[in-house]
Amino acid sequence: MDNRQTLYRFLQSITFVIAMLAAHIDLHAQPSSHPNIIIFLVDDMGWEDTSVPFSGSITSNNKKYHTPNMERLAKEGLKFTNAYAAPVCTPTRVSLITGMNVAHHGVTNWTSPFKNTNSDAKDSLYDPAGWNINGFTPVAGIDRAVHATALPQLLKDAGYFTIHVGKAHWGPQGTPGASPYNVGFTVNISGHAAGHPQSYLSEDNYGNLPGKNSAQSVPDLEQYYQSGTFLTEALTQEAIRSLEYPVAKKQPFFLHFGHYAVHVPLMADKRYYQKYLDRGLDSAEAKYASLIEGMDKSLGDVLDFVDKKGIKENTVILFLTDNGGLALTPPRGGIHLTHNAPLKAGKGSVYEGGIRVPFIIRYPLLVKAGTTTHNPIIVEDIFPAMLELAGVRNYHTIQKVDGLSFVPVLKNPALSDTARVLLWHYPNNWQNRDIPGTNYFSALRKGRWKLIYSLRNNTAELYDLYKDLSEESDLSATYPAKTKELLHLLGKQLKDYNAPMPVDKRTGNPLPYPGE
Amino acid sequence: MDNRQTLYRFLQSITFVIAMLAAHIDLHAQPSSHPNIIIFLVDDMGWEDTSVPFSGSITSNNKKYHTPNMERLAKEGLKFTNAYAAPVCTPTRVSLITGMNVAHHGVTNWTSPFKNTNSDAKDSLYDPAGWNINGFTPVAGIDRAVHATALPQLLKDAGYFTIHVGKAHWGPQGTPGASPYNVGFTVNISGHAAGHPQSYLSEDNYGNLPGKNSAQSVPDLEQYYQSGTFLTEALTQEAIRSLEYPVAKKQPFFLHFGHYAVHVPLMADKRYYQKYLDRGLDSAEAKYASLIEGMDKSLGDVLDFVDKKGIKENTVILFLTDNGGLALTPPRGGIHLTHNAPLKAGKGSVYEGGIRVPFIIRYPLLVKAGTTTHNPIIVEDIFPAMLELAGVRNYHTIQKVDGLSFVPVLKNPALSDTARVLLWHYPNNWQNRDIPGTNYFSALRKGRWKLIYSLRNNTAELYDLYKDLSEESDLSATYPAKTKELLHLLGKQLKDYNAPMPVDKRTGNPLPYPGE
Repeated sequence: MDNRQTLYRFLQSITFVIAMLAAHIDLHAQPSSHPNIIIFLVDDMGWEDTSVPFSGSITSNNKKYHTPNMERLAKEGLKFTNAYAAPVCTPTRVSLITGMNVAHHGVTNWTSPFKNTNSDAKDSLYDPAGWNINGFTPVAGIDRAVHATALPQLLKDAGYFTIHVGKAHWGPQGTPGASPYNVGFTVNISGHAAGHPQSYLSEDNYGNLPGKNSAQSVPDLEQYYQSGTFLTEALTQEAIRSLEYPVAKKQPFFLHFGHYAVHVPLMADKRYYQKYLDRGLDSAEAKYASLIEGMDKSLGDVLDFVDKKGIKENTVILFLTDNGGLALTPPRGGIHLTHNAPLKAGKGSVYEGGIRVPFIIRYPLLVKAGTTTHNPIIVEDIFPAMLELAGVRNYHTIQKVDGLSFVPVLKNPALSDTARVLLWHYPNNWQNRDIPGTNYFSALRKGRWKLIYSLRNNTAELYDLYKDLSEESDLSATYPAKTKELLHLLGKQLKDYNAPMPVDKRTGNPLPYPGE
Repeated sequence: MDNRQTLYRFLQSITFVIAMLAAHIDLHAQPSSHPNIIIFLVDDMGWEDTSVPFSGSITSNNKKYHTPNMERLAKEGLKFTNAYAAPVCTPTRVSLITGMNVAHHGVTNWTSPFKNTNSDAKDSLYDPAGWNINGFTPVAGIDRAVHATALPQLLKDAGYFTIHVGKAHWGPQGTPGASPYNVGFTVNISGHAAGHPQSYLSEDNYGNLPGKNSAQSVPDLEQYYQSGTFLTEALTQEAIRSLEYPVAKKQPFFLHFGHYAVHVPLMADKRYYQKYLDRGLDSAEAKYASLIEGMDKSLGDVLDFVDKKGIKENTVILFLTDNGGLALTPPRGGIHLTHNAPLKAGKGSVYEGGIRVPFIIRYPLLVKAGTTTHNPIIVEDIFPAMLELAGVRNYHTIQKVDGLSFVPVLKNPALSDTARVLLWHYPNNWQNRDIPGTNYFSALRKGRWKLIYSLRNNTAELYDLYKDLSEESDLSATYPAKTKELLHLLGKQLKDYNAPMPVDKRTGNPLPYPGE
C-alpha cells in the first residue's frame, strides 16, 4: 500500500466518524435544513368528503365519511380551511409543480392522454381556447405545452431523493411530461399520461387484461395482478417500499404520492364497502365512501411508517386534493350537486364546491399540533413553500413563480392576508351538462369577496364568503363598486398572463378579457 | 445558535472538506472497493452475431454483422471465448441474480407471464418436469418458485444505487419476482413479467395501442409513443438518464441493462435496416442484423456516457447475452440451424450454439485492455465475481451459491481451470420441432470434454471441444471410460441438486437421473 492509499483510507475513516457524529447531533437539532417532504395528493375528493370538519361545524357529509387518519393528521398538524385548487385536475397538478397560476401556465383543462388532442367537449358556439393541451414540459420546443422548472427537479438538484407514486397526469403520451422521470423524479411507480385508472381491481390487472387495455391501464403493478389487492393498497405498499431506500441512506426524500382514488370509475373497495351499504348509502355512494376510506387507510399506513422510522419530527406531510368533489349524478349517487354541501356545485365549477379542498400539513418541528388557519392559500403556493422548508434558496426557474410561500402561516396560523388576490380561470367546456359555474368561467377571491365571472355572458356575481359560504346571495347589485374593482383586477390579471380565452365561432376571435 | 448547532455546523464543514479531499485522492487510487457495475445483457443474441471474433478466426457470421462498439469494448477489455449461459432466457437470468446453477434453482425453462402456468410445449409421451414455473422469488411462501437472495439486493444493501432497465423476466404476474423493485432495484424502467416486447415500434406504442395490449406490452415509455424512437433507443436514453443521479451523487451504481433486442418479433430498426438489405441479406436477416446494430449503438452510447463522466477507470462493464442465437427458420431467414456456425444448433439446445455466448468485460483498473481468455465460465459465476469486485464480503444468502468468481481470470487471463465442471439441464419441451440437443437434454463440460445426454433416450455423446468446436464427431464409443466418468458426474450433480426431471406418462414417474 502506498502513502497515497494510506492517507486515503485514513481520511475515509475519519470522514465516517465525523459524519456519524454529525448525524447523531442532527437528530436533536431544531428544524433541519432538509426535512423530508411527502405530498399526499388525492384525486377528485371534495372538501366535505371526510370526517374532519373544515367548515367550522360538523356537517352531514362529515358524518357520512370515515377518515380517522385524516383526523389524526389534523390533530397532529395544521388544518387550512380556505385552501384552493383548480376546478379540474391537470391544471392543479401543473400549478403544484411549477408554482404558476393556471391562467399563467395555460394548462387550463385536463390533458388528454394523446398528444395534440383537445379534451374540451364540443360546443356549437365556441371553439376551444388556445390552452396548453400538451400540458407541462421540462424541455423547450414542445408545442402547446408550458415549459417550466419543476419542483421535484429543484428538490432533486438540492440533494433530495425524489419519488413519484400513482397518478401523474402532467402531459400526454409522446411528450416528455408524460414520464415522471422527466419531471425530476428518480423513482416512478405507476405514473403516466392518464388521469384515471381503467380499473382499481387486481382481478382486472388494473386494466391490463390482454386485449383490453386503454390509455388508462395502470402500469408497473404486475406483482399484484390477481392478488385481490385494491389499487389504493397496491400503491400504498409501493410508496412505503420506495421510502425504505432514502430512509436507510438517511437522505432527505420527496415523495409525491398521487392517489388514483377517488376518481371514477367508482368501484367498491371491498374492505369498506359493506359498512357503508349497512349505513344506508346507495351503492354508488357506498363505493365512493369505500374509496375515501381506502385512501384514508393509505394515509394511516404512510403516517405509521414515518412515525416508526423515527423521522416524524423532521418530515413534512402535506395532504390535499386536486379539485372539488364530483357532484354529478350519475356517476355519483345521492342528490345531484349536493355532494360538497355546504359548498356550491362541485368539480369543474369555479364556485367553492369545485375549488375549495381539504388541506392539512403536519411538520412537528415547525407546526403546532391541532391548529387551524383560515388564511386563504392556493395550490401554486406549495411550490415556494416546499422549497423554503427544504432550505433551497436562490434557485433558478424558467417560469416566473406566482405562488406565495405559506411558511409564515405555518409558524403563525392566526395570520390573515386579506389583500391577497386568488385567481381561477376555466375557459373550457368541461361537459355539455348544466352545472353552475362550470363552463367558460373565471373567478377571483380577495379577502371576504368572491367574484364569479361568465366569459360567455360577460356577467359577474359577487359573494361575501364570510357570511355566505354557499354562494347563495349574489351581492353584485348591492356592491357595484366592489364588483367593478374585482372585475378590473380579474381582467388585468388575465391580460397580464395572456390567459387563453374561448373563441367565438361567429367572429373567429377570442372572447374579450373582462373590462375590455 | 446554541453550542450544539455550532459544533454540528463545524463538523458538517470539516466532513465536507475531508470527503472532497478523499474523493479527489480516490480518483487516482488503485481498484476502488466500490466500482460501478454495468451488466449489459442482450436477449437471444448468438456467439457469432457480432463483428468481434470469438472463435479464433474471422467467420462469415463475423463479417455479416457490424458491432463496432463491441469491438471497442473488446479492445479495451477482456474477451471470454468460453463463456456460457443456459439454452433459454429465464434460467440464465435467475442464475445471474442468484449465483445458482439451473439444475439447482429449478427454473429450467422460460417463465410464462402468467402465474402457475407451465410454458412447456405439450408432449404425448412426457408430462412436464416439476420445475419452478413461478421463477425467482425474493420472499418465502411462493409455490414453485426459487426463494433466494438476489445480487441487486446485496449490492443495494452494500450502498449501491441499483437500476434495472429493459427486460426482466424473473417471475410471472402475481408473484413478487414480477417486479424488479422486489428484486433489489431502486429504479425500474420497463422491466416486468414478460420475456419479449409486443413491438419495438413507437408507432405501436411498444404494444400499448388501446385494446391491443398483451402481457408483452412494454411498460413505462409513454413519452416515446409515436415519436419514431425504436425500443432499443428509448431504453438506452432511459438507461443513461437513470445513471445521472448516482453519478451526480458520486454513489456507486449497479445498472442491470437488459435489452429486449434481439428477441423476436424481428422488426426492422430503420436506422440500419437498408444497409443490410443492400448487402444482400434477406428481409428477416436484415431485420435481425439491424436489431444487432441498434443494440451495439446502445452499447456505444453507454460507453460514451461512462467515459465522458470520468468514471471509465472505476466502472466494470460486462457484456453478455442470455443464450445462443435463435436458429429456427422461420422466424429467422437464411438457412435453418446455421446461424451460430461454427457452433452447432442454437437457442434451446445444449449444443454449443445454444449455450455459448459473447462475453466481454471492461474494467480498466483491473483488466488489461485487448486481452482474451479461454477459461470456461458460466453465468452463475457473475454473482460471486461482481460481489467480489464490489468489495462485498461475508454476505448472507438464503441459497448455496454454485458460481465461482472469475476475478482471478480478470487479473490473469492465461489461467485455465480444466477441472471445473459446468452443467446444463433442460428437462423441458421447448418446441415440437426437431432441433438437435433441444428437448429433454442435459450437458456437462469439463476441460476439453463435453457430454451431451438425452434424458428420454438415456444416451450420451462425447465431444472434444478443443478439436471439434462444432460437435460433429461423437467420441463416446472411442472414449467409453471418459464418457462413463462424465455421465456419473452428471448423474451425481443432478441428484445432489434434486434437479427436476420430465415425467413418463406411462409410469407417472420422473425419468431417472443418468446412471440410476
